[in-house]
Amino acid sequence: MESRFAGVWPAMLTPLTEDGRPAFAVLEQLVDLFVRQGLDGLYIIGSTGQWPLFTTEERCTIAERVVRTARGRIPVMVHVGAVSTADAVALARHADRIGADAVSAVAPIYYSHSADVVFEYYRQIGAATSLPLFVYHLSLVNQLRLGAHEYVDRLLAVPNIRGMKITDHDLYTFGLIHAFAGDRLRLFSGADELMGQAVLSGAVGAIGTFYNLWGPVCQRTRRALVSGGVEAGKTFMLRFQTAIARILASGSVWTFLRTAMRRKYHIDIGMPRPPLGSMDKPWPDAEVERLLAQVDGE
Amino acid sequence: MESRFAGVWPAMLTPLTEDGRPAFAVLEQLVDLFVRQGLDGLYIIGSTGQWPLFTTEERCTIAERVVRTARGRIPVMVHVGAVSTADAVALARHADRIGADAVSAVAPIYYSHSADVVFEYYRQIGAATSLPLFVYHLSLVNQLRLGAHEYVDRLLAVPNIRGMKITDHDLYTFGLIHAFAGDRLRLFSGADELMGQAVLSGAVGAIGTFYNLWGPVCQRTRRALVSGGVEAGKTFMLRFQTAIARILASGSVWTFLRTAMRRKYHIDIGMPRPPLGSMDKPWPDAEVERLLAQVDGE
Amino acid sequence: MESRFAGVWPAMLTPLTEDGRPAFAVLEQLVDLFVRQGLDGLYIIGSTGQWPLFTTEERCTIAERVVRTARGRIPVMVHVGAVSTADAVALARHADRIGADAVSAVAPIYYSHSADVVFEYYRQIGAATSLPLFVYHLSLVNQLRLGAHEYVDRLLAVPNIRGMKITDHDLYTFGLIHAFAGDRLRLFSGADELMGQAVLSGAVGAIGTFYNLWGPVCQRTRRALVSGGVEAGKTFMLRFQTAIARILASGSVWTFLRTAMRRKYHIDIGMPRPPLGSMDKPWPDAEVERLLAQVDGE
Amino acid sequence: MESRFAGVWPAMLTPLTEDGRPAFAVLEQLVDLFVRQGLDGLYIIGSTGQWPLFTTEERCTIAERVVRTARGRIPVMVHVGAVSTADAVALARHADRIGADAVSAVAPIYYSHSADVVFEYYRQIGAATSLPLFVYHLSLVNQLRLGAHEYVDRLLAVPNIRGMKITDHDLYTFGLIHAFAGDRLRLFSGADELMGQAVLSGAVGAIGTFYNLWGPVCQRTRRALVSGGVEAGKTFMLRFQTAIARILASGSVWTFLRTAMRRKYHIDIGMPRPPLGSMDKPWPDAEVERLLAQVDGE
Repeated sequence: MESRFAGVWPAMLTPLTEDGRPAFAVLEQLVDLFVRQGLDGLYIIGSTGQWPLFTTEERCTIAERVVRTARGRIPVMVHVGAVSTADAVALARHADRIGADAVSAVAPIYYSHSADVVFEYYRQIGAATSLPLFVYHLSLVNQLRLGAHEYVDRLLAVPNIRGMKITDHDLYTFGLIHAFAGDRLRLFSGADELMGQAVLSGAVGAIGTFYNLWGPVCQRTRRALVSGGVEAGKTFMLRFQTAIARILASGSVWTFLRTAMRRKYHIDIGMPRPPLGSMDKPWPDAEVERLLAQVDGE
Repeated sequence: MESRFAGVWPAMLTPLTEDGRPAFAVLEQLVDLFVRQGLDGLYIIGSTGQWPLFTTEERCTIAERVVRTARGRIPVMVHVGAVSTADAVALARHADRIGADAVSAVAPIYYSHSADVVFEYYRQIGAATSLPLFVYHLSLVNQLRLGAHEYVDRLLAVPNIRGMKITDHDLYTFGLIHAFAGDRLRLFSGADELMGQAVLSGAVGAIGTFYNLWGPVCQRTRRALVSGGVEAGKTFMLRFQTAIARILASGSVWTFLRTAMRRKYHIDIGMPRPPLGSMDKPWPDAEVERLLAQVDGE
Repeated sequence: MESRFAGVWPAMLTPLTEDGRPAFAVLEQLVDLFVRQGLDGLYIIGSTGQWPLFTTEERCTIAERVVRTARGRIPVMVHVGAVSTADAVALARHADRIGADAVSAVAPIYYSHSADVVFEYYRQIGAATSLPLFVYHLSLVNQLRLGAHEYVDRLLAVPNIRGMKITDHDLYTFGLIHAFAGDRLRLFSGADELMGQAVLSGAVGAIGTFYNLWGPVCQRTRRALVSGGVEAGKTFMLRFQTAIARILASGSVWTFLRTAMRRKYHIDIGMPRPPLGSMDKPWPDAEVERLLAQVDGE
Repeated sequence: MESRFAGVWPAMLTPLTEDGRPAFAVLEQLVDLFVRQGLDGLYIIGSTGQWPLFTTEERCTIAERVVRTARGRIPVMVHVGAVSTADAVALARHADRIGADAVSAVAPIYYSHSADVVFEYYRQIGAATSLPLFVYHLSLVNQLRLGAHEYVDRLLAVPNIRGMKITDHDLYTFGLIHAFAGDRLRLFSGADELMGQAVLSGAVGAIGTFYNLWGPVCQRTRRALVSGGVEAGKTFMLRFQTAIARILASGSVWTFLRTAMRRKYHIDIGMPRPPLGSMDKPWPDAEVERLLAQVDGE
C-alpha cells in the first residue's frame, strides 16, 4: 500500500486569475493533466504553490478542490506547514477531513528555532491527523546542527511520520538519512536538478516545481535509471541541469513557467502574488520552446 | 523635527491572553510604562511583537490601540513588512490613516528574492503612504550580495525612505552605510548586544527587544556614551552582553521576558503563539532578579 | 591516449617513519600494492599525502620515488599546489622532468584571493610544463563567486588544462561544469562519499583518500555502475557513506587509516606530522575489521 | 609590567627586494620609523608579514633582524604559527632565544582540525617558551563551534597564554570573551576597520596592517577615545572605514601599500611574493595622496 508514496510528483503550481485569486477552473485542468500523464502524485500548496501568500481559508479551499478533482485517480499530499503551530495543526486536520492522502510540513519559518521547538511542532502536526506525515526538509540538518543519526532518531519519534521531501544539494547527508532510517522513512528528492543522482542515495521519488512541465520525461528517465539506464540518466540530467540553470539565472522563473505551461499545455497559470514574479521579464516564445524541447529530448 | 527618530525604542512585546488573543489592556499598560519611563519611541509588531503570527486584521487592531494609547506622548513606528506586497502596502496605508509616526518593513521573507524584487517591494510600501519609511535590515547586504555603496544608492531611491533598523553584528558595513548615506538615512541599531558600539558607526538610536525590560538604563548609558562616557559605556555593554548571552543560551527567552516583566513591572505579557516559546522552561525568580539587577547595575 | 585519466585513483598516503621522515620503503610497497590491484592511477602529495607539511625538497624526493617505482605500470599525477606561485611552478617543472604523467594544483591557500589572482597562478603552473594540468577544486566556485559557466571559460584558457578534481558535495555545480566543458575537461570526483552519484554528473573517475584502502571494490562498483548496475551501486554507496561517516565522526581518521592498512595489507604507514592526527585515539582492531568488511561487502 | 601589551601595533610589512628576498635594510628603516613614531609595539611575520610565503629559516632571520634593530626601544611580538606543530614550536623557541617580547600563533591552517587538535597545538607552542603567548584568532569560535565561555576556559589552560589578537567583525563575541576572561587575557583588535568600536568590547589595543601607514593618527584617536573622545572617535572611524573599503574594493591592496609607504615615508617595501599582489594594478599617486590625507584628517 505504501508504494503509492514514490515516483514523480509535481509540486503543483496554484494558478491565479488576473486579479490574484485562485483560478479554480485552471487548477482542475492542471489536476486532470497530471492524471492523464500518469504522474505518481500531487504535492500541493508548497513553496511552488505559494503557501505563504495564501490565508488559511484559501489554503483549505484549494486543497478541497484538488482532492475533489483528483477523486482517487492520483494521490494528493497537502503541505500544511505554517508560521504558527495552530494553523499547521488546523490545516492537517482539514486535509484529513477532506480525504487527502498525506500531509507535509516545512519547519516553522522566520524565527530561528531550536531543534526541540521544531520537533514539537512536527509532533503536534503528526498527532493532529491519522494521515502519513512527510517532513519538508530545507537544508535543515545544518540549521539544526544535528548529526544525521540524531536527526533520524528524533524524526522517527514523530507521530505518523512516513517520510521526507529533502530539498538540499548534499546527497551525502541524504544517503546517511536513508542508511539510518531504511524503510522507515520514504525519501523524496526535492532538488529537481539532482533527481537522478538522488536515486543512488536512496530516494524513492521526486517532488518539485519542474515536474509541472516535464513530469512525463522525468518519470520515464527516473524509471529507466532505477532499472539500470545510467548512460541515458546521465545524459538527461545534464540537459535538465543546464535548462534549470538557464531558467534560474534569468531571474524570471515565473514568466518562464507561465509561458512554458501555455505553450506546451495551453494552460494559463497566471502570475503569482507579488513580491513573487514582480520583476520578471517576458520570455521570448522561441527561447521557451527551445528549452522545452531540450529537456524533452526532442 | 526629524530628531524624533533617535534614542532608545523598545521593539514592543505584544502581550497575549491565556487563550492566545492580543491582551489589549496589558498592551495599554506597556505603552503607559514606556511613556512614563520617557523612552524615545515605540517600534510595534516587529519580530519581537510576533508579526508573522498575527493576521493582517489583528495587526491593524494592535496598531490602532497602541497609537490611540500613545496619543502623541511618544512616537510610534509600525512594522508593516509582510509575506505579500499587497498586505505590506495595506498595512502601511492603515498606519498612515490611524496617525502613526512612521512605518518600517523587513524584506519579504521565505523565498529568496533578487535585489530588484526586494527594492520594488520597498518602493511600493514607501509609495503607499506619506509616513517616513525605515527599512528593517536583517543581514541583508550579504543576502543581496550588494556592496554597501550600491545598497545605499538603491535605498535612497525608495519613496519616503528615512532610515534603517540594522540588525547585524557587522559594524563595519553599518559604518559604511552611514558614511555613504550621511544624514539622509537615520540608522538604528537593531542588535541590542552592540547598542553602544554602534554609536561609533553612526547609529542615532537603538530598537530592540531588551528595551522592554531595560529601557531606562540603556537610554542613560547611550546618552552618557554619546557625551563621552566611554568607560561607563564599556562596563555597561559587558554586563549587558553577558546577560543577553545567558538568556539566549537558555533557549527560554520568552519565559525569561515574561517572568522579568512580571517581577520588575508587575505586567503579565503572557506567552507568545507557538511555536514561539513552546519548549521554554521556567526561570527561577532569583535568577531572573539577579540578571535584572546585573544589567541595571544595582 | 587520454583515457588514461579515468577510473579510481587513490589520493596516496605518504608513509612516515617513527621520527616523522618519509618512509621510502613503505612508499614503494604502497605503489606496488596499487599496481597489483590494477587501480587506474596514483594522485600523490595531495591533502591526504600531507603536502603542506613537507618542504619543497621533500615533495620532490617523494615524487621521484613514486614515479621511479611506478615505472609506467600506473600513471602518476603529482600535486604541485603551494602557498607560493614560485614553489608551485618549480614543483610542476620537476614533475615534468622526472616523467610524471600529469600535475594537479589546489588554488593558493590561506589568503583570500580574487579570481584573477587564482587564474594567474594556474596559468603560470600550466605554462611551466608540458604535462596535462588538473585543477584541484575545493568548493572553489563559491569562493570565487563565479557562475559555473564563467568558471569553465576561464579554466579552459589555462595552458595545458586537462581536467579537474572536484571535492564538493554539490553535484549540481559539478554537472553544470561538465555540461559546459564537455570533453574538454575530464572531471574526477574528489568526494569519496559521492563517488557513485558523481557518475551521473559526468565524472570519469574518482580520486580520494579511501581508495588507499578500498580501491578494488570501488573500482568494481564504479565500473558496474557505469554499465547499469544501479541497484548494486546504490547499495554499495550506502555502505560506503555509513562507513565514512563513522570514521569522520570518530575524530580519529589517521589511526583508523593506519590500523586498517596494517590489518588489511600489512603495511605500516605510520602517523602523519602533527597537528595531523595529534589527538587521534586508538581504534579497536575488531571495529576496524568490521568496517573493512562492511565496505568490502563481505 | 604587562601594560606593554596595549596600544597600537603595526602588523609589520616584510619588505622585499626586486628579486623577492627580504630587504633587511628597509626592514630596519621600518622598525626605526615605528620607534620614532612612538608606536606601542611591533607584530611581525603575521599575515601582513607574509609568513606562509617564507621558509622557517627566513622567518628566523627576519625576526632576529627586527629584534636586534628594536633593541628594546619597542616591544616585538613574533608570529610563530605554522602548518606543522614542530615548525611553530621551533619558531617559538627561536623567538625566546633572540629576546623577543612575546609570541603569537594562528590556528593550524589548511586542514579542518577539531578543537582538541587546535588546543594541543597551542599547548605545545605555549610550553615551548617562557614568552607570553597571544593566540591569533581568525573567526575561530565559529570554526571550532565552541561557545565563548568554553573557548575562554580552554584558552586559559594553555601554558603562558596572555592574550589574543581577534580578527573578526563580531564584537559581541569579542565582548563575551572579554567578559569571561577579564584581565587574564589581553585582547587586541585585529580588524582595523573596527579598532575604535572594539574599545567598548574590551580591547586594550589594536594590531593590524594599516598601522604601518597610519599608526600615529590611530594611536592618537584610540587614546582620545579611551578618554571619552566619542564624537572624534566616530568621525575618525567613518573616515578610516571608508578608506579601507576603497582600498579593499580596488583589489590592489599591495600596490596601494607600496605607493603609500613610498609617498608618505619614502620607504620602498617592494612587492610581496606571488600569488600575493600578482594582479594588482598601479594606483595613481594623487588618489593615494587623497586617501592618505583623508585618514590623517588633513
